[in-house]
Parts: sequence; C-alpha cells; structure tokens
Amino acid sequence: MVNPSPQQTWSQRFESALHPAIARFNASIGFDIELIEYDLTGSQAHAKMLAHTGIISPEEGEQLVTGLEQIRQEYRSGQFNPGIDAEDVHFAVERRLTEIVGDVGKKLHTARSRNDQVGTDTRLYLRDQIGQIRQQLRQFQSVLFALAEQHVETLIPGYTHLQRAQPLSLAHHLLAYFDMAQRDWERLGDVYRRVDLLPLGSGALAGTTFPIDRHYSAELLGFGGVYSNSLDGVSDRDFAIEFLCAASLIMVHLSRLSEEVILWASEEFSFVTLKDSCSTGSSIMPQKKNPDVPELVRGKTGRVFGHLQALLVLMKGLPLAYNKDLQEDKEALFDAVKTVRGCLEAMTILLQEGMEFRTERLNSAVAEDFSNATDVADYLAAKGVPFREAYNLVGKVVKTSLAAGKLLKDLTLEEWQSLHPAFENDIYEAIAPARVVSARNSYGGTGFDQVRQALDRARAHLSEP
Amino acid sequence: MVNPSPQQTWSQRFESALHPAIARFNASIGFDIELIEYDLTGSQAHAKMLAHTGIISPEEGEQLVTGLEQIRQEYRSGQFNPGIDAEDVHFAVERRLTEIVGDVGKKLHTARSRNDQVGTDTRLYLRDQIGQIRQQLRQFQSVLFALAEQHVETLIPGYTHLQRAQPLSLAHHLLAYFDMAQRDWERLGDVYRRVDLLPLGSGALAGTTFPIDRHYSAELLGFGGVYSNSLDGVSDRDFAIEFLCAASLIMVHLSRLSEEVILWASEEFSFVTLKDSCSTGSSIMPQKKNPDVPELVRGKTGRVFGHLQALLVLMKGLPLAYNKDLQEDKEALFDAVKTVRGCLEAMTILLQEGMEFRTERLNSAVAEDFSNATDVADYLAAKGVPFREAYNLVGKVVKTSLAAGKLLKDLTLEEWQSLHPAFENDIYEAIAPARVVSARNSYGGTGFDQVRQALDRARAHLSEP
Amino acid sequence: MVNPSPQQTWSQRFESALHPAIARFNASIGFDIELIEYDLTGSQAHAKMLAHTGIISPEEGEQLVTGLEQIRQEYRSGQFNPGIDAEDVHFAVERRLTEIVGDVGKKLHTARSRNDQVGTDTRLYLRDQIGQIRQQLRQFQSVLFALAEQHVETLIPGYTHLQRAQPLSLAHHLLAYFDMAQRDWERLGDVYRRVDLLPLGSGALAGTTFPIDRHYSAELLGFGGVYSNSLDGVSDRDFAIEFLCAASLIMVHLSRLSEEVILWASEEFSFVTLKDSCSTGSSIMPQKKNPDVPELVRGKTGRVFGHLQALLVLMKGLPLAYNKDLQEDKEALFDAVKTVRGCLEAMTILLQEGMEFRTERLNSAVAEDFSNATDVADYLAAKGVPFREAYNLVGKVVKTSLAAGKLLKDLTLEEWQSLHPAFENDIYEAIAPARVVSARNSYGGTGFDQVRQALDRARAHLSEP
Amino acid sequence: MVNPSPQQTWSQRFESALHPAIARFNASIGFDIELIEYDLTGSQAHAKMLAHTGIISPEEGEQLVTGLEQIRQEYRSGQFNPGIDAEDVHFAVERRLTEIVGDVGKKLHTARSRNDQVGTDTRLYLRDQIGQIRQQLRQFQSVLFALAEQHVETLIPGYTHLQRAQPLSLAHHLLAYFDMAQRDWERLGDVYRRVDLLPLGSGALAGTTFPIDRHYSAELLGFGGVYSNSLDGVSDRDFAIEFLCAASLIMVHLSRLSEEVILWASEEFSFVTLKDSCSTGSSIMPQKKNPDVPELVRGKTGRVFGHLQALLVLMKGLPLAYNKDLQEDKEALFDAVKTVRGCLEAMTILLQEGMEFRTERLNSAVAEDFSNATDVADYLAAKGVPFREAYNLVGKVVKTSLAAGKLLKDLTLEEWQSLHPAFENDIYEAIAPARVVSARNSYGGTGFDQVRQALDRARAHLSEP
Repeated sequence: MVNPSPQQTWSQRFESALHPAIARFNASIGFDIELIEYDLTGSQAHAKMLAHTGIISPEEGEQLVTGLEQIRQEYRSGQFNPGIDAEDVHFAVERRLTEIVGDVGKKLHTARSRNDQVGTDTRLYLRDQIGQIRQQLRQFQSVLFALAEQHVETLIPGYTHLQRAQPLSLAHHLLAYFDMAQRDWERLGDVYRRVDLLPLGSGALAGTTFPIDRHYSAELLGFGGVYSNSLDGVSDRDFAIEFLCAASLIMVHLSRLSEEVILWASEEFSFVTLKDSCSTGSSIMPQKKNPDVPELVRGKTGRVFGHLQALLVLMKGLPLAYNKDLQEDKEALFDAVKTVRGCLEAMTILLQEGMEFRTERLNSAVAEDFSNATDVADYLAAKGVPFREAYNLVGKVVKTSLAAGKLLKDLTLEEWQSLHPAFENDIYEAIAPARVVSARNSYGGTGFDQVRQALDRARAHLSEP
Repeated sequence: MVNPSPQQTWSQRFESALHPAIARFNASIGFDIELIEYDLTGSQAHAKMLAHTGIISPEEGEQLVTGLEQIRQEYRSGQFNPGIDAEDVHFAVERRLTEIVGDVGKKLHTARSRNDQVGTDTRLYLRDQIGQIRQQLRQFQSVLFALAEQHVETLIPGYTHLQRAQPLSLAHHLLAYFDMAQRDWERLGDVYRRVDLLPLGSGALAGTTFPIDRHYSAELLGFGGVYSNSLDGVSDRDFAIEFLCAASLIMVHLSRLSEEVILWASEEFSFVTLKDSCSTGSSIMPQKKNPDVPELVRGKTGRVFGHLQALLVLMKGLPLAYNKDLQEDKEALFDAVKTVRGCLEAMTILLQEGMEFRTERLNSAVAEDFSNATDVADYLAAKGVPFREAYNLVGKVVKTSLAAGKLLKDLTLEEWQSLHPAFENDIYEAIAPARVVSARNSYGGTGFDQVRQALDRARAHLSEP
Repeated sequence: MVNPSPQQTWSQRFESALHPAIARFNASIGFDIELIEYDLTGSQAHAKMLAHTGIISPEEGEQLVTGLEQIRQEYRSGQFNPGIDAEDVHFAVERRLTEIVGDVGKKLHTARSRNDQVGTDTRLYLRDQIGQIRQQLRQFQSVLFALAEQHVETLIPGYTHLQRAQPLSLAHHLLAYFDMAQRDWERLGDVYRRVDLLPLGSGALAGTTFPIDRHYSAELLGFGGVYSNSLDGVSDRDFAIEFLCAASLIMVHLSRLSEEVILWASEEFSFVTLKDSCSTGSSIMPQKKNPDVPELVRGKTGRVFGHLQALLVLMKGLPLAYNKDLQEDKEALFDAVKTVRGCLEAMTILLQEGMEFRTERLNSAVAEDFSNATDVADYLAAKGVPFREAYNLVGKVVKTSLAAGKLLKDLTLEEWQSLHPAFENDIYEAIAPARVVSARNSYGGTGFDQVRQALDRARAHLSEP
Repeated sequence: MVNPSPQQTWSQRFESALHPAIARFNASIGFDIELIEYDLTGSQAHAKMLAHTGIISPEEGEQLVTGLEQIRQEYRSGQFNPGIDAEDVHFAVERRLTEIVGDVGKKLHTARSRNDQVGTDTRLYLRDQIGQIRQQLRQFQSVLFALAEQHVETLIPGYTHLQRAQPLSLAHHLLAYFDMAQRDWERLGDVYRRVDLLPLGSGALAGTTFPIDRHYSAELLGFGGVYSNSLDGVSDRDFAIEFLCAASLIMVHLSRLSEEVILWASEEFSFVTLKDSCSTGSSIMPQKKNPDVPELVRGKTGRVFGHLQALLVLMKGLPLAYNKDLQEDKEALFDAVKTVRGCLEAMTILLQEGMEFRTERLNSAVAEDFSNATDVADYLAAKGVPFREAYNLVGKVVKTSLAAGKLLKDLTLEEWQSLHPAFENDIYEAIAPARVVSARNSYGGTGFDQVRQALDRARAHLSEP
C-alpha cells in the first residue's frame, strides 16, 4: 500500500519523488473508492478498540470516531471526493481526518497496518454484497416459484441431448432452476463463514506490540471470529476466490436458463413470447425481436470465470506474507459482484414480466412426438416382459411408425397386438402425455403429485431466514 | 451414455452400426474404468432397493447382488478387464452380469437410466476421494505442527514484498500454512455435504414410473439425502466444480509453500538444506541439487486450475437436462484428484524427511538487517511520541545508518539521543531480535506466547474427527 | 530432468537414494514415452553433428546413429518398452544405447543437456503434429466445400440472436465455417514458424564449451533456424502456448458448428437427419437418436481451453532459466493435440457421412417467416424513401401482419399500397426467398453469384500447399 | 445492438418501452465511448463509399463526412459527451449527425448494420493499439539493449531450478528478455494481419442489396483485405482472442522479469538497488523499500489471462451469426490493452531509471560457488575422459570440497591430481569465472564473443520497421 504524493507518509527514507507514471501505475484510488464506507466503519471500530484498551484516551477515541463520521457525511453529500493524487482511499481518509481533528488523527493508524486494514475493508464489503446477492437469489427463486405454481399442469417436452425424451410438467422444469438457486444460496452461506473472519490486528505481517483486543474489534464489526495467524491474516485471499467460484456457479445456472429462453423464443420452438419491455429490435431488420437479456447474461458468464482465473493466477506461488500483487484482487471482485447482481436482476425481471409461456403450444407439442416411447416399454415391463426385451421391441415399433409417418397414439390395437400380445386397450391411456407425466411419480420426479410436494419444499426454503 | 458395439442395447431403432472412428471417439471405457467398484456398489444398492420395493423378487435381488460381487472379485484379481469394445464401464458390467446370472441380469437396469447411474458413481467416487484428501491434509498438518513445535524459538526473517520486514518465530511462519490447510479441510467438509446427495432414481431426466424408494437407496449407500428434482439430479455438476475450486485452493497453498522452499534452498537464502532423498541432480552440472518436488508442485498448480476452467466451460449454456458433453467431467476430475493427492503426499514427505532448517543461519540472519526498525518507532510511540512522527524519525535513522554501513544495534546511545531525547539505554534490548519477536504478543501475532497458544489451537484441530 | 534409479547419472554427489514416492512423483516416463521417436531422431542428428565437428570420431558417430536406429526398431516391434523405473525417456534411451554400443554411448550426451534435448524433442513432436492437424483441416474444409457445392441453391434461414433474420444460401452458411478453418490453417502456419526453431546447443542454460555447429544440427533436422539466446532456448514455452491458443480457436469453431448441428437435429428445427453410423441411442428411451458427436466436441472445448490456461499459469513468474515446472508442459500439449485431432476427425466424418440436410424442409422454412422484411425496406429505399422511414413503415407492416396471422407474401397489393403508395406489383417478386437471397449480391454476401465466386476462392485455398 | 431510448430506431414494431433496469443492463455506452473516434472514421469512409458508388449523391456524401468531422471536434473539445441514455456510441453519433445535417443523416446507415459497423470500429481500434504496443515493445527492447551493451563483461550467476548452475554475462541474461520481446513484436505482426480485414459491408449477416464497393471502403481505411463471408464477418472474434493470447504472452515475459527483479532486490540476492523514483515505502515499517512495480506487473498477469479465458468462453458454442453475447468482447479487450500498455511502460521506466545493477556484488558472487563444476568435467572430457566418467568424478570432488568448506578454486594441484592424473596447472585458469563464461562460445551461448554478436543481431532488430 502506497502513498507517493508529496506528503507521503514514508517519505523520510526516500530522497526523490516517485516517477509520475509509476505513481499512476501504483495508484488504486480509481477503484478502491468503492470501499470508502467500509473503510470508515472499520476505522471507527479500530478507534473504539484503541480507546477501549487504553492505547489512546477515551476523548481521543471519541474525536476519531466523530471525525470519521463527518467524512462519511462529506462523502455521501459529494463534498469529499478524493482524486488521483490521493493514491489510495485509506491515505485519503487519514489525511482528511487529520485536517478535521488535528494531530490526534495521526494516532488512528496506531497498532494497524495498511495490510490488515485493506483486508478488513474487503471482507466488510464482501460480507455485505453476499447478503445482498442472497436476497436477490431469493427474489429470483420467488419468481420461479410463482411461475411453477401456475404451470403445474402445463406440459413441456423434456430433452436429453436436445432430443425430445419424455414430457414434463413445466413446473418441474422451472423447479430445477429453483433447486440450483437454492444450492447457490446455501453455498454462499458457507462462503460467508470464511469471509466472516477479521484480519485486523495482524499488523503488517507479525501482529503488533500494542495491547490490542482483536476480539473486541470483531464484536464491534459483527465478525464471527478473528484470523488466528497474522501472516495468514494479511495474505489470505481464499475467501475472494471461493466467492468467485460461487459466483461462477450462479453464472453457470443463469447461462443454462438463458440458453433455454433463447431456444424457447426462437421461431422453431416458440415456447415463449418475449415482451417488448425486455427485448430489442434490429437497426435494419424491422421484424426482429431479440432476446438480448439472456444473450448478454450468457455472454457475461465468461467474464466471471475470467475473474476467478485471474485471482487464482494472482495467488499462485506468492511467498508470505503481503505482496503488492494482492492489490489486484479488488477490481476482479468488484466487477464479479456487479456482474452477478446485474444478471440476477435482469433475469428476475425477464421471468417476472418480460416473457410469457405459450401454454397451448406447449401442451400440444408433447402430443406430437415419440417421447412416450419409454412408457410403452414400461407398460410391457409392468406386464412381466423383461425390460431389455420390452425396450428392444419398442425400438422396432418406433422405427416402423416413423417409416409409416405415424405417432404411437395412431397405431391400432391390432397393430399393437401384432407387435406383442400383452398390449391391451389401456395402452392408449398409458401413453397419453398427461398420464405419462403423472406416472413418473417417484420422489423428485415430474409426476404432478411429486411436483406439488416439491412446491411445498420450495415454499419452505423461501421462508428460511 | 452409449454402447455402440454389435450387441448395443439400443440397436433396434438403428439400422447400421456406428462408424468405428466414431465409436472410438464416443467411448469412455478408457477412463471410466476408474469408477468400476463404485458402479458395482451403486448397482448392488439399486438391486437391493428393487427387491425391497417388490419391483423384483427377493431371489432376483440376491442373484444380482451376488453376481455383482463376483464381478468385483474378478476385477480385483485381473480376470475381468473390459477393453475398448466395451465402450463404457456400465455396459461392460451389465453384460458380464448377464453372462453370470442369466436373464435376470437384464432386470438390473429397471427403473434406472445411464444418466442417474453415472451421476451416482461419480458422487460415490468423489465422496471417497474427499475423505482421503482430508486425511492427507491432516498428515500434512501434523508434519507442519511437529516442525512448528520444534521451532518456536527459531527466528526467521519475515517478509512483505520479499523485503525483510519484521523477524518471526519460524513456528509462526509454519503455522500460517497449518491454518491454510485447516481451511482446506473445512472447505472440503462443506463441499462434501453437496456431493453427498443421491441422484439415483432421477431416471433419464423425469423420474420413473416404478414404485422405487430413493431414500432406501440413499440409506444403503450412506448418502445424506437425495436430489429433490430429477432434471437437476441428472444434469448437476456443481459438486464437481466446487470440488475443483477447493482443489485449486489447496494447490494455491502448496504453490506458495513450494515457492518459499525453492527460495529457502537457494544459495542466496540458504535457510534449508535439501536432503538427497528428496532432491535430484543435473545431467551435466555435477554440483547441482535441485528442489524438484516443490518445483513440480508449483508447476502442477495450473493443471488443476485448468481442470476447473474446463468444467466451468463445459457447463456454460447447457440446456436441461442430460447432454453428452457431461461425459467430459470425468477425466478432469480424476486428474485433479490424482494431482492434488500426489502433491500433498510429496510435500508431506519433503517437509518430514526431505529438508532441514538451518537453524543457526536463520537465527543469525535476523540480526543482520533493519527489520527491527518498526520497534524503534513503537519504542518512541510508547514513550508518547505520535506514531507518524516516530515513524518519520526512524526513516531518517535508517537512511543515515545505511549510508554509514551500520545496523541499528551498532548505533551508540549518544547517536540515539542525538536523534531524539526519549531514547534510553533500554533501546538495545528493545531491538534485539528475540525481544522484537516476543513483543508482538497480540492475538495471532508472532510473540512466543502467542505461538504457543496457536500450537494449542492447532493440536485441538488435529484431534477433530 | 532426473534419473533417480540406482544407476542414476548424477549419483556421485548424492549419498542416499531418492524416496520411492518422490521418484514416482518426479518420473515422466509415463507420458514422455510419446516423444521417443523424436528423441531418437534428435539424438541421431546430435551424434552426426558431433562427428561432423570432430568432437567425436566419424566411427563413433556412426556407432551412435546405428545404435539409436536399433532402439527405434526395438521400440516399434515392442521389444524396447521402458517402465516406470526408467524415470524419463531420455535416460531410458541413453542407457539402452550404452548396452548396445558400449562406452561410446556415454559420449552421446557430450555438449548437450537434458534441457535443450527435451526442448528439441517437443518441437520435433509439435512440428509434426501441426503438419498433421493442418492436413486434417484441409480434409474438413474439403467436406465443407463439397457440401457447399451441392447446396448453393438450397435455402436456410439465417439467424441473428437465434431469431430468423434473412434467408441464406446453405452454401454460404457452410462456407463461413470453411473460412474459419482457413484462418485456423493459416494461423497454424504462423505458429509453425515459431515452433520451427532449434534450441539444441543451448546446453543446460549457457551454451557449451564444445565447438558445436548448431546450424548443422538444424539443417539435419530441417529446422528453419536456431534460438539465438541459450537461456531463452531452454526456457521458452511460447511456442506451446501459442499452439494451444490456435487449438482453442479450432475448438471454438468446432463448438459453434456443433451447437448448430445439435439445433438442426432437434425435433423443432429438423434441418438435418442424423444417420445411424454417427448417432447413438438411449439405454431406456427407445425412440432416441442422439447427436453424441457434436455434443462431445462441444464438451471437449473447455478441455483445450483448460490446457491453455494451465500452461499460462505454469509460466507465470518463472525466473530464468530452466525450472522443473516446465516438465508439466507435456501432458497438456499431448492431450490438446489428441483432442483437437479426434474432434476434427469426428466432425469431418459426421459432415461427410453422418448427417443429411433435409433440403425440402429447409427450402420451405424460409418461406414461412418475416425474414424478408428488410427487403421491403430496401424496396422502398430503392424507390427513394429514406431508409429510416422505410424501416419504420415496415415495422408497422410486420406488427399488423402478425396480428392478422398473415405473412408478408399474403398481403394484397391494395394492402401494400394503403401502407405506402410506392408499392407496386413487383413487391411480390422482391420478397420471394430466392430473390431475397440472390439480391444480396455484395462481395462476401449470400447472393448466389457471390457464393459461386466464394466457392472459386475456396477451391483455390484447397490447392494451396 | 440496441437503442431503447424513446427515440429508439426500432420502435415501430414495439408497443411498450424497455424496462429501465433492462435498458441499463443492455447499454454499452459506458465503455464503447472508447471507440468513438474509430466509429467516426469508419462512418466517414462508409459515407464516401456510398457516394463513390452512387448510392447517395456526392453532395450528401460531403455533408455526412463534414457532419461527422464536426462531431469529432465536438467530442475532442468536450462539447459532445453522450450519457447513459444514448445507449451506445453508434446511435449517439447517428442522432447527433441528424441534428447537424438534417434528414440526410438518416442515410448514413444505408447498406450497413450495427453488426458490421461495430466489428469495423473494433478492428480500427485494435489495429491502432497493436501499432502502439509494438512501439512500446521497441522501447522496452531498446532499454534492455542499452543495459546489455553496458554489461557484457558483468558476470551474474546463472540459475536452473533457482540453484546456481553456471556463471553468465549479465548482457546475455538481459538479451534473453530482448529475444522474448522480439517474439512478441513478431507475433503481434502476425496477429495484425488477421485484424487487418474489413467486415464492413457484411450487413446484419448476409451482405446487402445495395451496390456497395467493399474494397473501396477497405482502401479508404487502409485495410489489407475484406472478409470474404458475411456471416463470418459479423461473428468472428478470432482476432480479439488471438490478440489476447499475444498479450498474455507479453505478460508471461514481463512476469518472469518481474519475479527476477523482485528476487534481485531482496536482501538475500542484493543484485540490484531500487531507486526512490520507482519504489515505495511501508506505512509502518520505516526501513522498507518495496518493489511495487514488478509486483504489480506480476499481479496483473492473471488479469490478462482472465480476459483471454473470458473471450474464449464467450465464443464457445455460439450459433451463427451475430449474437448479443458478442457485445461482451469490448471491456475485456480494452482492459487488456490498457493493462499491457501500462505494464510495458512501467517496466521500461523501471529498467531505464528505477534500478541499478550492483556490478561489484554480481562479479564477486560468481566466484563464491560451485557453478564452475561443469567446466571441470568439460576440462577432463577435453582431455579424453568420457563425459559421464568426468561428470561422476566431479560430483565426488564437489562433495569432498563441500565437506571441507572449500571451493574448487581452493583445491591444491596435488588435491586435483590425486583425483585424476589428467589435471594440470591450467585447471585454475579453466575454472575462473570469466574464463568459464567466455568458454561457452557456442552460437547463442554466453561467451563474450557470442554476446557481442547477439548484440549486433539485436541492433539489427531494433532498426526493423
């Protein structure tokens, strides 16, 4: 952490000023201003701890806390707006503080280093953002849940290999994404526990000679614990990488849903209609209505993966303890947070008010294919024909039917019986789409009863704290 | 999942055989043989469940379980060794089973699909491997712990920016890695909870029409729960990606330690001696003794990052539910497991018996630099000089001393007092390395008392289940 | 580079043997056996150079070359098959050579190091593989070309945002992939020039004291040049990374085509029929016919990206010159080569004999949408209406038509003229799909004349050396 | 490409306005303003071409060109500064143009689409930036060259595995980086050829019905050629990925040099002195002088790798032709350009004026180790002892000497001769560092003569255009 401005704190050992291009290259104020409120909060807690332990007087503590609060107000009102010459947000704050409270301001940095300070700020920031992302996940899940509730009995072709496989309840399909989001929500909870550790008090790398009380600071800032090794405290970035992995998985899930919406909105699928409020036109093709939102979300997926890679590469092979390389953790983190939050918001809006399922088209689609073929095999298996034999027989039926341009429902009972004597009149009911769906009544399956139970479980998740 | 051999199970719908190059391209037997024992275990549980629920008879269930056990023995003794024509391990097992038990073998696949089967196998595999990696982490921690116990009072220069910053207890330095490994151990515990969910019973994508009991299967296989959505069950690979992230973080930590060992073993640092059992020579430079182990570990770091990236890319934008792309999850996972386990083993051996700290050299190194400068500033601050002033003064002292070719300990009391009247004779004691270390007695700091408490905490971790 | 076996070449400086687990960890024979023939070729050239420069006698040179050739024959016939105790392929060869030719075998390594030797082998390997991949690209292009020639007048909907935009000649669509492959072919040519530099003679890092002739070695091995700095020569892996980038781009192109084939093969698009020889069935859904080949290709894309990332990470921050980390370059490279070659082969087969375009369906598809809307705007613009006005008008027409359930071709002339008086009877011709396609007659456009010219250019590319 | 503002160009087909959050999400003006001057240049060329081909009148062409030039001036003077409501830079320009020149402004977009327009802008931008990066590489090389010229006879230990291996000329070491930069320069030249292709005239995807002249546009804009397939023209991003790979390799090289500078600046190595103008202090450790520049450069390496990955992921599996995902190419590209340029500038300054080699220390370092051991073996080999025997013997010598605390130069002639009778008095000269260096006189080796020849080659490169 540096401050190469004329007033630079470490200037006594140095004879000449920093080369201006190098000062620009080193400066972090361009992005770490994002941390300012967290920095103020962290510094206020530090000041209180210093007073609490008698390292500074109660009055000094009070002055520092009040001065820092004034800076917060100045920042919010736009009066305090440190420029590039400030180099980093921490020095900018310390300097302004000293202007406000005088020499006591110079005591704020007692028993603290830039290294544990910036680590504290970043964790305060990320704790906050994780909380907000989890709330956004809940909103996203609520919208999926509401749609699923409406569409329990809407059918949709189910695919494997993008080939029609078996018909589904549309609610079941939507709840698959609900479950992914639930995992994201829980995973972020685990990540949070490892973000929720305070490095403050680690000093530059080795702790401090002052009789600080790190647990008191942690209590003031609401941290679940403190780092138990100062070297680890100043150089650990696991928490950021773990967050970026969780963020990447959110993007994986959103990209999968995006791909599906793009497919569904195509002429060929026509499963959804995009509304004007969430789609855009072309500059030269007047008939176009483009699914920009899911395309952009899909496109932003790599961006978050890239940030994850960037931080892994950053950490590879760094010797203990703090190295300047670590300054590079912030922009990746900030942009990933912004990207994930933007994508969650846009996809939630899209689902909620930007598209509509074409129910009629969906219900008729599942009647026009061979996705009930497994049920013919199951029908025979239920009548005692070994599964593999039943399966092979149905393979033949499908081939014959395709050649004849017929669907299974179009075969006569005689045709069925000529294939196997076990077929009876109930075969038609057995292969009707709604029946095919309801029959998959195993736990977690698409059967309507199962889907209703899944909705109950989903509802319970939504009311989790 | 496919079986394009002449006996291919799905051949009735198909008229011509698979092109041989395509068969080779599709085949997974070359790597999924790694899963065979997990596949047998999973199939045995499935057979028991089928019998338990009356889908097959108790005798049939018995026959299947026994037949599968016979295959396990044949595999272990080398008698059963499916070749490339088997295409994948699941078909190979089913075919051999039918040879052994006859037509009842064809009933094994009732109420199951390749999609939920392979998902089950992979989770059984990964649960097992995570358990073993956690044990290896414990061994690695034990060795770090034992070294730390020996070296509480060994001093080592502490670095930031690879510049000497403040002297440390070597134990403190080693315990930083202990704490990283502790986080790895805990993180893998969290990952485990999300691996520990059974997809079996999800069928191809939609569940099954058979009255299966998924919770019974889960109980037999010791799973903590079952997937609550069949589409998610067959297409979720979050667990693999989350594991690869945890694996990448292990590699980050090992790469950092590797970098340090490589530095320590250099002529310039000379902090450790590599033993012959863990280092190698050059083919043409007879004096060389190379730290191959940490170099290779550092070099393998990118390999695991690459697998993480590969799986993220794999999942991006895949529509529901199963797609053949998912077959590509295995080699990345297997190689990452193998790499992490190999690296943990090698680093554990290296620390345990492959290198020795040069205690004398370490203790003397810290006496020969300016890493006690902060303590001069703290000394003044403790005497009431504001920290920033004290800091600036010491900057000047260092500059003067460097110019004079002196260390701080070499300054006379007069020289000290000419710098600031607050200096007294106790300044010499205050800046002696051992004193400097012991003075950083804040929680988590390098002070000897703190390090002993940290050892107690570490000991407690080692006895966690 | 190591040889920790009992006979290890560097054992004199060492007192105890390598720990067996470490020996296993260090060993590269498991994968570098892939290089054996390149190693033999490189060593033969080195021996000839040693003789040519008088460093060894002509007879000794002859003996070495012959001995190495014998090893090649032994390897090809399966007689020479070095196991894990050989540690690496280079030592295995040198040891076998000494068994065959006696003490003169020990002279082979004169003026050479493992570091420049393995670099030479890898470049020989990669030069060869690049040549073969370029040939495979030509075959892939030939198949695209042949298909394009057949389908100049077959129409296919053209998409942006996966929304139908403007109709295309299918040949034009296929030639887009031809052009991507052409770029891949050219890019590999550029990569080749940087692979085609010989590091041999760089020694361990600093060159050699022997009067070698590196240009003679280069000439014997057909290299375009030699590295001009020995440190760079032994530690450069740019060539491998650059190749992996070119390989990643090939995978990008194949993944895009794969995605399209998967879409085209879906029920909804039905643009192609997959043949039995290149698709597979399901283990439980008898009607399925899955596009495994393009799915696997798409899935393998991340694998190659991962290898690229792995090597970049490997190289980050490595000090000069050779470090053991570099041993990790090989598996990534070998697997990427194997993956790209397998994918190119499979996709070439798929296009050539594994799928068929459904021409009738394609030609009718383009008549059933609004993708001729731009042409209405162009029609008006050609009659002097400013483009933006024309565009806005057509937007209204589309909206009205959609509401009325009509396509543009279904509007009456009166309806047209009520929209704008400029419309005349030729509007119907102007918006007929084939006319719409042929009208895009700008260079590189889809107009049939342009496509025929593009075929001519493609034919010329195919005959480039 | 979108314009969701009230005046949105495609609004006729749409009934309701874009949701404001979605408008924000879709907007690119926040970053694509970077392209404005390139957009103006591209549009001017397009207008000229339209007039040249008679699609618009000469007067209209003139008006458009003049109006666009006015916007350029307005932008440069700060008068024209499109805000977030402008959505993207292209619409912002078109709207302003129409304000300036009236209805003729609406004709600018004739025979053009947003898709080929933005592709053109990006290529104009990247061509320009590549040119500037190549110039920066030349400056970086010049500084390396100048340093090398000064330090031909300065010795420095050469390392493999970070173990001292053989002494080097410092110039030779520096020229290794010169050669890497030379490769970067050449590689960017190859990339340039593939960036230097004009997509303009590809239309939205299929070309245009207007009689445009793409080669004329290319000539006006100085492009080497035009895309020969319109679908490829609007959807190709190979050029950006290839650039990012080249940029990643530059970062690899800079990170390696950075690592070395960090090592060299450490207390332990002490090979260089950092100057105040390029290093920074600590906020609490007054003695610190930190190598921030190389640390930051090393830390930024992953950032560029991450952008490369992001774009690869972006392109994976995208169907033809343009998809909104492609909008995400820009920020990655812009940030990579900015990062590489900043790092090159900072490292050039650092080498030129921010550090100084400690020549005396370097020259003495090489006399104090066993890095001349190979030369003893070579000495014996030159006297006819087979290399492997000589090598083994020297291994023993080193072991004995180490045990005795002696260096090789300290052995008496008797001691030498007791080891092998071939040793004579010239052994002392043979192992003197300068002699050891000069003896490695093979092409590309560190021998002083070789280094001088390498300098000649480097000088020639520097004068290449």
